[in-house]
Amino acid sequence: MRILLSKRAIRTLTPRFQRLWSTHSSFSTSGSGGFSDDSKPESWKTMEGLLRSPANFSPLSPITFLERSAKAYRDRTSVVFGSVEHTWLQTYQRCLRLASALTHLGISPGDVVAVLAPNVPAMHELHFAVPMAGLILCPLNTRLDTSTLSVLLQHSEAKILFVDHHLLEVAHGALAKSDRTRKTPKLVLISQSSSFHSNHSFDYDYEDLVKSGDSEFEVIKPRNEWDPISINYTSGTTSRPKGVVWSHRGAYLNSLATVFLHQMPVSPVYLWTVPMFHCNGWCLIWGVAAQGGTNICLRKVSPKLIFKSIATHKVTHMGGAPTVLNMIVSSPVRERRPLPHRVEIMTGGSPPMPQILAKMEELGFNVSHLYGLTETYGPGTHCVWKPEWDSLSLEERAKLKSRQGVQHLGLEGLEVKDPVTMETVPSDGVTMGEVMFRGNTVMSGYFKDLEATRKAFEGGWFHSGDLAVKHPDGYIEVKDRLKDVIISGGENISTVEVERVLCSHKAVFEAAVVARPDNHWGQTPCGFVKLKEGFDCVKPEEIIEFCRDHLPHYMAPKTIVFGDLPKTSTGKVQKYLLRKRADEM
Amino acid sequence: MRILLSKRAIRTLTPRFQRLWSTHSSFSTSGSGGFSDDSKPESWKTMEGLLRSPANFSPLSPITFLERSAKAYRDRTSVVFGSVEHTWLQTYQRCLRLASALTHLGISPGDVVAVLAPNVPAMHELHFAVPMAGLILCPLNTRLDTSTLSVLLQHSEAKILFVDHHLLEVAHGALAKSDRTRKTPKLVLISQSSSFHSNHSFDYDYEDLVKSGDSEFEVIKPRNEWDPISINYTSGTTSRPKGVVWSHRGAYLNSLATVFLHQMPVSPVYLWTVPMFHCNGWCLIWGVAAQGGTNICLRKVSPKLIFKSIATHKVTHMGGAPTVLNMIVSSPVRERRPLPHRVEIMTGGSPPMPQILAKMEELGFNVSHLYGLTETYGPGTHCVWKPEWDSLSLEERAKLKSRQGVQHLGLEGLEVKDPVTMETVPSDGVTMGEVMFRGNTVMSGYFKDLEATRKAFEGGWFHSGDLAVKHPDGYIEVKDRLKDVIISGGENISTVEVERVLCSHKAVFEAAVVARPDNHWGQTPCGFVKLKEGFDCVKPEEIIEFCRDHLPHYMAPKTIVFGDLPKTSTGKVQKYLLRKRADEM
Repeated sequence: MRILLSKRAIRTLTPRFQRLWSTHSSFSTSGSGGFSDDSKPESWKTMEGLLRSPANFSPLSPITFLERSAKAYRDRTSVVFGSVEHTWLQTYQRCLRLASALTHLGISPGDVVAVLAPNVPAMHELHFAVPMAGLILCPLNTRLDTSTLSVLLQHSEAKILFVDHHLLEVAHGALAKSDRTRKTPKLVLISQSSSFHSNHSFDYDYEDLVKSGDSEFEVIKPRNEWDPISINYTSGTTSRPKGVVWSHRGAYLNSLATVFLHQMPVSPVYLWTVPMFHCNGWCLIWGVAAQGGTNICLRKVSPKLIFKSIATHKVTHMGGAPTVLNMIVSSPVRERRPLPHRVEIMTGGSPPMPQILAKMEELGFNVSHLYGLTETYGPGTHCVWKPEWDSLSLEERAKLKSRQGVQHLGLEGLEVKDPVTMETVPSDGVTMGEVMFRGNTVMSGYFKDLEATRKAFEGGWFHSGDLAVKHPDGYIEVKDRLKDVIISGGENISTVEVERVLCSHKAVFEAAVVARPDNHWGQTPCGFVKLKEGFDCVKPEEIIEFCRDHLPHYMAPKTIVFGDLPKTSTGKVQKYLLRKRADEM
Repeated sequence: MRILLSKRAIRTLTPRFQRLWSTHSSFSTSGSGGFSDDSKPESWKTMEGLLRSPANFSPLSPITFLERSAKAYRDRTSVVFGSVEHTWLQTYQRCLRLASALTHLGISPGDVVAVLAPNVPAMHELHFAVPMAGLILCPLNTRLDTSTLSVLLQHSEAKILFVDHHLLEVAHGALAKSDRTRKTPKLVLISQSSSFHSNHSFDYDYEDLVKSGDSEFEVIKPRNEWDPISINYTSGTTSRPKGVVWSHRGAYLNSLATVFLHQMPVSPVYLWTVPMFHCNGWCLIWGVAAQGGTNICLRKVSPKLIFKSIATHKVTHMGGAPTVLNMIVSSPVRERRPLPHRVEIMTGGSPPMPQILAKMEELGFNVSHLYGLTETYGPGTHCVWKPEWDSLSLEERAKLKSRQGVQHLGLEGLEVKDPVTMETVPSDGVTMGEVMFRGNTVMSGYFKDLEATRKAFEGGWFHSGDLAVKHPDGYIEVKDRLKDVIISGGENISTVEVERVLCSHKAVFEAAVVARPDNHWGQTPCGFVKLKEGFDCVKPEEIIEFCRDHLPHYMAPKTIVFGDLPKTSTGKVQKYLLRKRADEM
């Protein structure tokens, strides 16, 4: 494999650039600066007779999806959660009441409201009610430990924290660790029954707030569409919190682009197997509202519940990291139910493996592959399927499906570039470069970290930190995280390629490869492998031998370690922990 | 029927208002003014760390649809016209070349380029190539007479006129009538064969221009998304030309909203029975590009060609005024072909009649009803179908389908209001008011007519000039044009309702009702009726009697005139001509 990247580019994650952006572009250091670009040539003519007025301008915001669905789909079901069921008109009125109540809690427009909850209806409603009160939503990962939560609550300066009753203890744990000189957020309890009792205190009850609000509340629209709508802390693993700020404009555009990407018709039935706290549910909390769909909420995800929900509610669309797919295909047959029709399932996070794809198709799912980062509002690219691929073998199809593909409708540009020269790599399928995005569905920046924002936008493109090649048809394929790539004896090794070979071994359930320091080679690949049940007798040497049969020798792992893989709450393997273990071996 | 409108409101089309728009809204008298609203309370917080950069901002423009489709759908068919067939990559490259060539014709960004052509591939390409060169497209109605064309060419100040070879003579006729002191536009000939000969001169040949251009041309993006992308002259009937200006932003948003409204999946096959010059093909030239669809072009529309195209190209979507539907259901059986699948057909302009709906459904079409004006970028509302309506009788369904429904995704507001008080009418299905729109898919204004623009936007809403009621479910139903409504003996009569009764008579092919001056009543309804073949012996008295049986007496026409109805090129009845005839009777 030819590598275009210089080692300096790979080693220094944050190369500096001389070049700024191209001409014809505006720039401001504020998040709500001017809109027009006065640097354009004066030869441009101006038309007479035109007028900017509320009649022909309103800030783009996903709030308008809810407002419209309350009219266009007023009596259709918006949310189902156990025995709870609402229509779009009801959801709208509940959100208006909640927004109204929020404005009476002593906070101001532009303040941050955090939420710590699983995929329950309140979590859905907060995605509308909070911005409808001119506030900014900060959805927190429900699996975070109290220390990290404490850091994020302080960093976000959240004034209010909505907490699911199951997580009230965790929330209190986090608040106890907070800096005592600072005001802690007020707690609003989300509970399913009014008879909830706890030893832990809270300031307000969610349903009481909803009841106390005014359903005639006049929505506080953003001052302009660049106003922040949410902060999402990345599942990143560094100690420096990265609060990715999204705008109303970007959320509107990415929601529509994501609906297009999912090919959602009017009134889809969406099963929430993606955590809503994860990139605001891949923008689909807003997207499903745009199409007047039904949100099937689940407190916890299990194969049994997935199959039951699909059968009961005639689910049309769902999504999830490959772990969710893995969970489905590995489920005991007794927990399965026949699908009422083909179910569209979007996967992202990492490409789906051929074996899993095959089994998913057998079960009646159609798997599509999307790719993006929190910084790109979740979904940013899509492996748009080509009709001519239908007739290929399963293996061929899986290989093609694992490509990250092309940008969705909301983006202006997607390229694979050398991060130092900013030159686009040739479309040869072998030259690696860094995946870069540009367009309205790229974040406004990292909250309180202008330096990190500047670095991320160097050269006028968002630097993803992912390494990819570009195929002759223009589709990109991610090969590795920039920081994960292994350099062994001067050769660059894509850990994703080694993992793919490892996973094709019949005994391997899942695998992750990281660099292990080596006096001679600099680094060598080290494979962490979880074996399938009943394959405990397999030896590391067998696996290494298998890799050497299917890869250039320098790419085959020198070390194989068996055991469970540490993962983030969104199902991503925590390679930094594995690297630490490899370092210590 | 209760009428909320004061007679003053009805008689004076342009009431003045004291009130301006609500707070929280920006306003500027220029088309490219500031974006943020500094009048918002200062209590709004500003977030640190954010940055506006080319990485996270680009002006919204439908040009990006073509750029993306050249990647995502590069080898799929973009356009079919007889034996001509292009892929999306080819269309993109041809548009780049054409845009490049345009910049060498001595014109500047912001100049207007007019086009007079039927639905041929060049017409399609110009919708991209012209804005890609920083220019503004002015598509002209191909059925206009030379005098009107001459007025519009002068009013638009077009620097170039693209002309289809069949219309070269008309174009020369128009130019001959132009003010000789002004520079006339350069002519570019669109011809299908290189061997075209004419007695009429032209400056450039379309295909030569495409060949001469540079396919590596760097697209001239709009300075900001408020820059005009096109001027559409309304099919209005007054002597004062109304050049409706659309922006890149509005075109982007309305194209997406229209694709949603059509429920177009990826790669639709769209048959061009809507004239492309009409509201830029209802925004679908851009919309079909967004989904990588195939455009089936037709020089002329006939039932035979429609059925043949559907069968040959497996058309999935099409559109047209009710005249197109009428043409289809009235076609001789020998010209029909079985449909390969259900074909979605959108109709607009006036609501479809039950009889025609029934026949269309029998033939295998699914008819949907949209509504809008040139000022709302074409489609603005949609009668979103409710599942519970499926089981109703045909007549009931037709009645419901004839409602204009609810706003599409691109609009912020749709209301029926008293144009004087600006109060919203009750949702009772009987109180009439004026249909008003607000949102990003409302025009930038009337070119060179700030006074008309101001009037149209009075009160912060766009005044459509259409009278409607609002039903209890929030769906609107247009009853008449404000200027068409008849006031007889102090009662307001909806001509649409009278026409519906006329059309339900077995002998009537089509009908239009206008006011006829009357010394006693002020005005009385006068019906113009075209009879079906074989019903020549029907007497006017019979028709009047029929109306008196089905309507309140004051609403029944006092006069019935048989004959053809004068129509605009888009199939709308020219009521001003009928009013003139009624005046002279």
